Amino acid sequence: MSYQKVTIVGGGTLGSQIAYVSAFHGKDVTVWGRSDSSLEKAQARVARWEDGVRRDLQATDEQIAAAREHLTYVTDLGEALAGADLVIEALPEAPATKTEFYEKFAKLADPQTVVATNSSTLLPSAFAEATGRPEKFLAYHFANEIWKNNTAEIMPHPGTTPELPATFEEYSREIGMVPIMVKKEQPGYVLNSLLVPLLDAGSQLWANEIADPETIDKTWMIATGAPAGPFAIMDTVGLNTVYAINIMNPDTSHQEIAKKVKTMIDAGHIGVESGEGFYKYPNPAYLAPEFLK
Amino acid sequence: MSYQKVTIVGGGTLGSQIAYVSAFHGKDVTVWGRSDSSLEKAQARVARWEDGVRRDLQATDEQIAAAREHLTYVTDLGEALAGADLVIEALPEAPATKTEFYEKFAKLADPQTVVATNSSTLLPSAFAEATGRPEKFLAYHFANEIWKNNTAEIMPHPGTTPELPATFEEYSREIGMVPIMVKKEQPGYVLNSLLVPLLDAGSQLWANEIADPETIDKTWMIATGAPAGPFAIMDTVGLNTVYAINIMNPDTSHQEIAKKVKTMIDAGHIGVESGEGFYKYPNPAYLAPEFLK
Repeated sequence: MSYQKVTIVGGGTLGSQIAYVSAFHGKDVTVWGRSDSSLEKAQARVARWEDGVRRDLQATDEQIAAAREHLTYVTDLGEALAGADLVIEALPEAPATKTEFYEKFAKLADPQTVVATNSSTLLPSAFAEATGRPEKFLAYHFANEIWKNNTAEIMPHPGTTPELPATFEEYSREIGMVPIMVKKEQPGYVLNSLLVPLLDAGSQLWANEIADPETIDKTWMIATGAPAGPFAIMDTVGLNTVYAINIMNPDTSHQEIAKKVKTMIDAGHIGVESGEGFYKYPNPAYLAPEFLK
Repeated sequence: MSYQKVTIVGGGTLGSQIAYVSAFHGKDVTVWGRSDSSLEKAQARVARWEDGVRRDLQATDEQIAAAREHLTYVTDLGEALAGADLVIEALPEAPATKTEFYEKFAKLADPQTVVATNSSTLLPSAFAEATGRPEKFLAYHFANEIWKNNTAEIMPHPGTTPELPATFEEYSREIGMVPIMVKKEQPGYVLNSLLVPLLDAGSQLWANEIADPETIDKTWMIATGAPAGPFAIMDTVGLNTVYAINIMNPDTSHQEIAKKVKTMIDAGHIGVESGEGFYKYPNPAYLAPEFLK
């Protein structure tokens, strides 16, 4: 077995999922939150993941009850970190927030504790020194609804000890994830390095008025056999994220995409979450059999 | 009904498929080839497509026999073009070859004949004037094994009459294709505008040693539900094509990809067609259930 006593720092969307799925698979999990109210929110999220795991993994009431026994919620960071085998940091994507945490971690954590960042956009080398144990640190990245979309990307930084990734590979399998071994630091890991160019290409065809979103998705689905095209994927990712990625890029075409997406966001259409994006939900047009004809 | 009397200029891989599928759906099809030997090759190809249509569309012997009655092979260009409602040019991707044909076409074809290029990489505006009837000309692009991968991209150039694309939309449906309406000229149409960036992103992760091809494909398949990842797709496309696309791009990363692909080609591994590429065929690893675990 790899790690048994695990602390998740931050109980947001991803942190609470990693915590819950680890507990569901028998790990002893502590969730740290900065206040009682943030921990209450984390517990409400966990109740939602219970529903998801019940539905998607056919979990029994006994399994759900057992998982609850494996979860502890604390606001004291020293208490949360004490004795942990593994700490997974799942704080907001703000470098200063993360650095501040790692500096505290360096002082409070046991010397043997291993630590990982769940950051999706920042590279682990940016925080390696602050951890005080760069050799025991890497990036560990999950998709959303991790019990179902079960990839876990494991990415070392240049100072990570070569033996560390294999322990995360083992941990991933123990909690039902498929480990994706990334050999070197890469912004976007493997998945987003593939996904962003596809979404970008689709967006550009749309912004340049070459074809409409439904035509583009249909072409992709028929030609590659994929269950969704780039616009359906963007609805799932959420248009706020699509906007954020495009507005950062100064190219004319990205600014044009950002402008068009902004119009949709301003109308309250931010994707699956709001019930409308490029498609209307539930039952979006692209899932109807006649869409591919 | 849109067009009944159809001439396909060139009986190569794509030309012979467009001819056969049109004939299978009851169109009166003439295939033009430059010599008896090129027409013999075209007929041998058609025999292969008969097998494919029999297998994939569950065609009966009667249907196969009826399709044969709808196919004529001629070497005289004037004879091939006379009385055609629609001419589809499927010559090699050499601009001079195509221009030479269109100049002959302009002199020989009936005034009402509509014409389309099946070019995958050249834009129709490059040949519009040579046709002598730019308003009756557009690009009409098919995938390989068109009876199965049944997208047909319809792309006008700026001088195409606005009513023309709809007639190709109708023709496409009559021959069992899903028409993809491209509104404006776009190199790569819709499909390759999406596909090339994905293949490129995968190739770069491989060339930069971020992850191996199987890891990259696995990530894509699990995360998006697609039946194949970029390297499986490259094996299907063929590594000669992948090489040709990369070697044209002077960027270091593309040159590195070209170099790595060249090593595989030199070893005789050019993809599905040769029995080995990134995977070994038949029964490539990515189709095994344990690949996604």
